[in-house]
Amino acid sequence: MPGNSFGRNFKITSFGESHGPVIGVVVDGIPAGLALDLNKIQAQLDRRRPGQSRMTTARNEEDRVQCLSGLFEGRCTGAPLTLVIPNRDAKPKDYEHLRDQIRPSHADFTVMARYGFRDHRGGGRSSARETAARVMAGVVAASLLECIGVHCYAWVHSVGPHALTVPLHSGLASRGTTSGYEHHRHCPFTLEQIEASPLRCPDSYASSLMEAYIDEVRSAGDSTGGTVVGWCQGLPPGLGDPVYDRLEADLAKAILSINAVKAFELGSGFAMSAGRASDFNDAILAADTKEWSSVETLTNHSGGIQGGISNGQPLWFKAGFKATATVAIPQQSVDFQGNAVKLQAYGRHDPCVVPRAVPVVEAMMALVIVDHVLGWPAAQLSVLLKSIARP
Amino acid sequence: MPGNSFGRNFKITSFGESHGPVIGVVVDGIPAGLALDLNKIQAQLDRRRPGQSRMTTARNEEDRVQCLSGLFEGRCTGAPLTLVIPNRDAKPKDYEHLRDQIRPSHADFTVMARYGFRDHRGGGRSSARETAARVMAGVVAASLLECIGVHCYAWVHSVGPHALTVPLHSGLASRGTTSGYEHHRHCPFTLEQIEASPLRCPDSYASSLMEAYIDEVRSAGDSTGGTVVGWCQGLPPGLGDPVYDRLEADLAKAILSINAVKAFELGSGFAMSAGRASDFNDAILAADTKEWSSVETLTNHSGGIQGGISNGQPLWFKAGFKATATVAIPQQSVDFQGNAVKLQAYGRHDPCVVPRAVPVVEAMMALVIVDHVLGWPAAQLSVLLKSIARP
Amino acid sequence: MPGNSFGRNFKITSFGESHGPVIGVVVDGIPAGLALDLNKIQAQLDRRRPGQSRMTTARNEEDRVQCLSGLFEGRCTGAPLTLVIPNRDAKPKDYEHLRDQIRPSHADFTVMARYGFRDHRGGGRSSARETAARVMAGVVAASLLECIGVHCYAWVHSVGPHALTVPLHSGLASRGTTSGYEHHRHCPFTLEQIEASPLRCPDSYASSLMEAYIDEVRSAGDSTGGTVVGWCQGLPPGLGDPVYDRLEADLAKAILSINAVKAFELGSGFAMSAGRASDFNDAILAADTKEWSSVETLTNHSGGIQGGISNGQPLWFKAGFKATATVAIPQQSVDFQGNAVKLQAYGRHDPCVVPRAVPVVEAMMALVIVDHVLGWPAAQLSVLLKSIARP
Amino acid sequence: MPGNSFGRNFKITSFGESHGPVIGVVVDGIPAGLALDLNKIQAQLDRRRPGQSRMTTARNEEDRVQCLSGLFEGRCTGAPLTLVIPNRDAKPKDYEHLRDQIRPSHADFTVMARYGFRDHRGGGRSSARETAARVMAGVVAASLLECIGVHCYAWVHSVGPHALTVPLHSGLASRGTTSGYEHHRHCPFTLEQIEASPLRCPDSYASSLMEAYIDEVRSAGDSTGGTVVGWCQGLPPGLGDPVYDRLEADLAKAILSINAVKAFELGSGFAMSAGRASDFNDAILAADTKEWSSVETLTNHSGGIQGGISNGQPLWFKAGFKATATVAIPQQSVDFQGNAVKLQAYGRHDPCVVPRAVPVVEAMMALVIVDHVLGWPAAQLSVLLKSIARP
Repeated sequence: MPGNSFGRNFKITSFGESHGPVIGVVVDGIPAGLALDLNKIQAQLDRRRPGQSRMTTARNEEDRVQCLSGLFEGRCTGAPLTLVIPNRDAKPKDYEHLRDQIRPSHADFTVMARYGFRDHRGGGRSSARETAARVMAGVVAASLLECIGVHCYAWVHSVGPHALTVPLHSGLASRGTTSGYEHHRHCPFTLEQIEASPLRCPDSYASSLMEAYIDEVRSAGDSTGGTVVGWCQGLPPGLGDPVYDRLEADLAKAILSINAVKAFELGSGFAMSAGRASDFNDAILAADTKEWSSVETLTNHSGGIQGGISNGQPLWFKAGFKATATVAIPQQSVDFQGNAVKLQAYGRHDPCVVPRAVPVVEAMMALVIVDHVLGWPAAQLSVLLKSIARP
Repeated sequence: MPGNSFGRNFKITSFGESHGPVIGVVVDGIPAGLALDLNKIQAQLDRRRPGQSRMTTARNEEDRVQCLSGLFEGRCTGAPLTLVIPNRDAKPKDYEHLRDQIRPSHADFTVMARYGFRDHRGGGRSSARETAARVMAGVVAASLLECIGVHCYAWVHSVGPHALTVPLHSGLASRGTTSGYEHHRHCPFTLEQIEASPLRCPDSYASSLMEAYIDEVRSAGDSTGGTVVGWCQGLPPGLGDPVYDRLEADLAKAILSINAVKAFELGSGFAMSAGRASDFNDAILAADTKEWSSVETLTNHSGGIQGGISNGQPLWFKAGFKATATVAIPQQSVDFQGNAVKLQAYGRHDPCVVPRAVPVVEAMMALVIVDHVLGWPAAQLSVLLKSIARP
Repeated sequence: MPGNSFGRNFKITSFGESHGPVIGVVVDGIPAGLALDLNKIQAQLDRRRPGQSRMTTARNEEDRVQCLSGLFEGRCTGAPLTLVIPNRDAKPKDYEHLRDQIRPSHADFTVMARYGFRDHRGGGRSSARETAARVMAGVVAASLLECIGVHCYAWVHSVGPHALTVPLHSGLASRGTTSGYEHHRHCPFTLEQIEASPLRCPDSYASSLMEAYIDEVRSAGDSTGGTVVGWCQGLPPGLGDPVYDRLEADLAKAILSINAVKAFELGSGFAMSAGRASDFNDAILAADTKEWSSVETLTNHSGGIQGGISNGQPLWFKAGFKATATVAIPQQSVDFQGNAVKLQAYGRHDPCVVPRAVPVVEAMMALVIVDHVLGWPAAQLSVLLKSIARP
Repeated sequence: MPGNSFGRNFKITSFGESHGPVIGVVVDGIPAGLALDLNKIQAQLDRRRPGQSRMTTARNEEDRVQCLSGLFEGRCTGAPLTLVIPNRDAKPKDYEHLRDQIRPSHADFTVMARYGFRDHRGGGRSSARETAARVMAGVVAASLLECIGVHCYAWVHSVGPHALTVPLHSGLASRGTTSGYEHHRHCPFTLEQIEASPLRCPDSYASSLMEAYIDEVRSAGDSTGGTVVGWCQGLPPGLGDPVYDRLEADLAKAILSINAVKAFELGSGFAMSAGRASDFNDAILAADTKEWSSVETLTNHSGGIQGGISNGQPLWFKAGFKATATVAIPQQSVDFQGNAVKLQAYGRHDPCVVPRAVPVVEAMMALVIVDHVLGWPAAQLSVLLKSIARP
């Protein structure tokens, strides 16, 4: 069962191991004529890259994107677009001592059970380095979405116990049980605000608490989890399917396919399970234009999706990342000979990967949305393709 | 973009509207020779059916399963299996007053935006009645899984603010932030315990609190949400893929495709985002047999999956359902002419659908798992097919 | 590997056995709003039905189409459309003597090898009765195509050694090695001309030769093969893909998936293998409008497709059917106990199925084309959807 | 609609343009542990390469395979295998004069109609150079098939009017109307016999006639078509599906997706359309073992497939290639400004591509068969995986 492709209409196929020659991705289904700027891809790769700040790992991977196919005079041709980044910082010997070890809460055991043997060097396909392929493809998706005014954002909402305080634009009090994002008609933060924090948390006070917490966690040889919010602005109503291929179902799959993600909630999510319809139904407001298609909702607990289909309100969701499993604290485990062992990681490891995961969340969000856009009823879709200027 | 099929190796295609002649499902990819008991399907349909107790809606749908193809002398032939239930309780006039109304937090608006017109009678394909198709197919999947000793359970974990207290078999204290299920090597409840409660909550004290709460909510003309836990026992290690088709990613999609589900977490889920690796890594215990493939973990925060692949521990997850949007309390909305209106539901509506969703969660869980089983390496898969006695 | 679905954008899933309750099909991916006339489906089923004339089998199956889902007030809703025909003429005892027999050039042996057991009654899924499902779905596809002026035709080109003489509209001499269809810009026959012949061969002289030949073959207890031409008029240029999903590749798969088809050629086909480029290249003629997109070709050896993509000329191809394997002549074979036996068919059997296969060829052609149409660049596709009047 | 992938269980995704940096392919779904020899891939690429003899084009492309992912210590890891060949002989200026031209029977016109613009350099994705990707992936497929004793062969059966004379091993007279291959239980030729001819026609007399014919055609500035026979030896019975995904249907699609192929016939193909069941039914012979699964057929008109499923006899088919459209003879055409022009090709062009297409036919055959093998019932499939030695 081949499992390295994602998407039906905008299909990506990812390849490459963390310690092989390249990490790459083939993107198939791009409408011909789309202008693509490789610098945008590079910029997004740089956001995912380790070693951006002391908050993340000190490795300097310096990923440089190369295009192997599908681009002609700055435009996508409709042929498969292939993007790769050579692996430069591979140090196989760093991993030699792990050949026989089964690290707790890692994929060592399960990959062996699945495939019968494994490339022990840095996790092979299970390495988070694979997400670089997603980030590259995600920029192509985002470029398409920008043609119809759809923009994807993500930011760090919490690290360990510290969460940002959402500014309540509309002046309404936030419910204690929800995230507070349900009152916003526009993305509450700009990209600049997000990038101003080394943790990509656009709230300087929360960000400083998080920094201190990560420092403490690092000192303890430990690591911490966190949550990322994804936000999509400008989504027209009518995107998604009512049964299996619901927009939120495809999003959930996309987000849960990211390394270390263990939880997903759309809009007010689990908080809605603890409450009543009268608390969480989103009342509908008549539009000045008297057109039904222009109505808005008073709140947005639904996260922009009703019955699997976008309703024109901002789409927002939360992804829960567990702490990276590799820590300097000794852990009880077993080796592949069945002997009990104590494991302890040395070397460079992230105390908190959540800030680096922000562009990955953006990428998966853009991939899901563009996949639904390209499967759209054509009368609406033609608006998209008209806005792609042909050469 | 056809969106009414689910699964790659074990593929179901659902059809039928809540007020058409039938709800049905075609199941393709069943290994030839599988014995199938239609009574099991009927029993599971009865669990999903409205009107089982005063806790749910009073409609008596009385769904009777019929098999249209794929069964020969009690065994699946390898041809598509088609199962239908005729719709008997259709009362289109009950819905006539809704023709022009856009109900808050319903799919009325989004279906119109998606398709340009809609069957307003009971929600068409957006109706939860479609989940009967899933339940029927789910029993076929579960029958296959039973051949290899894999069993799927689900129960109500919480209704509104009331959650069950998980019995801590291993004597360890439950962390406040998690569900307590991380210490169990076996399903903590039997089917009998689950069914003993009208709410399918296998904790009589919690169940009685939930009943009282639902009564109160019903009296207020309101409805309430809740959570369901899914649990899979007997899953061998090695099931799933490491990149996009991770077992938990496919599960998340499956669960989020159920009506009213807004959130999903695997194992300790969001609680892991708020903590450290040292709190949530699952230490590995050496097996008596000294075989690496027989190891177990001390805890099961990971919910039975590492890196997208099953690790042989129980798989468990939680699904968050919002309250059904239809309530007797007047709500602010708009009609399709753009006029502001006050909406108020009359007639029979569920104050809490969560108990009826239990067999749906079981079905989607079984469908995802069997899909991965059939895509398994053959050396392991042959065990499965050998255990299907041929006629 | 589920193999009962066809199509990517317009997906059909077929179900039912020749001797089960129904033959049916689920059609997913129909644009919402398409008007559908069940009488058209019935009419096409009648063309496929046995017993239309003494040229075909005398069984009177009387297939009546029923719609189980997806239609609301005469229009497709965008939900899955389910169509079934009940099986009324099932006489299982007619087949009892075949339970242990392996009929030469039938699927008895291979189905047993594939599935380990089989429904011996009339061939199960291997029965040509399954093609009724295709015919029903094909009418839906054809209805969509008619909205953009695309029409699919088919007729009998040859039966045994007798082929029709193609009228050479343009006055050019036909090459001996080709079919003569390469000089036509419009379908050389009308539906009325085709239906005027009991053999669906629109050439009265050839038709009468074929009739006499079939009578002779029937008397000898034998059966005969033949060829069917498929023709698509009105196809705009630009449909298809240049690599794997070429229009002719998808057509070839569709046609070879019809029972008894053993060969396929596009345009001048095998004749082109025996000749030179200078004989078979299609010269291009400048259009009066001076627009490149309006050019035509002098000949149409290519059959309307270049490099996998339609070129705006008529699409035409030929399907080769072998004779039905069931004959009254004794044949050497083996039973499932391994004993040599002499087999001889009794009862009603077609001496020539080719005339009844005409609507099946039309159906598969329409299904392939509409699948590509719905995957079209949206700017072009929007023309299609605009022409579907919404209610 | 992404169209650059092929296969369901063994999925290849092809990328690269004839004048871009590389031609490549990602192969997903390879069972972990398969030993792979890159030299075998190189050898097969060399067979496809131009300039092998004076019979083909004089360009020296010298394609060198490189592996970018999925291989670890000589074995496939179960991760996507990526193979590329850098393009070295790109001379874009050779094609500059074609920027505005619409070459007859080429894809220039249709690609422009499909995508709205095109990479005019050497055909982009429509170039036959893309088939190098197929050849690389085909060797991986063939390596898997060899583990279960399945071998794929292909040879040139005819060039223009000259066909080989099939040696009649079994001493039976060949029917005039068929290919004569229907009497063989084993591949009539060895790879050495095939490779002994510069035309890959294992009949020295026919080969010399073909050579002379190609010389004549080249002198005339023309090109010629031909046919290739594909043959698969060792296929066990039970491979394929009875409805849409018939083995012959998937083969037909695969073969028609090769550039310049216009026709396909399985076994005796079109000849069967002109004859009777009594001429073409394959009588079944009892096996010495008295086991039904070991029976053989007296003839093999069916080409090794009955009802979509392999019957254990050799699989054989014929592919019809048209002459390459590029010729030195002036041809009537139009440019993209709508002006009538006379086109005439200069430079290096193949008078007959059929010998170079032999490895491409082998590749597509292997890809289709391995795709069905991996979708097989597991009890049989496990034989395959056991024979792949794990490290």
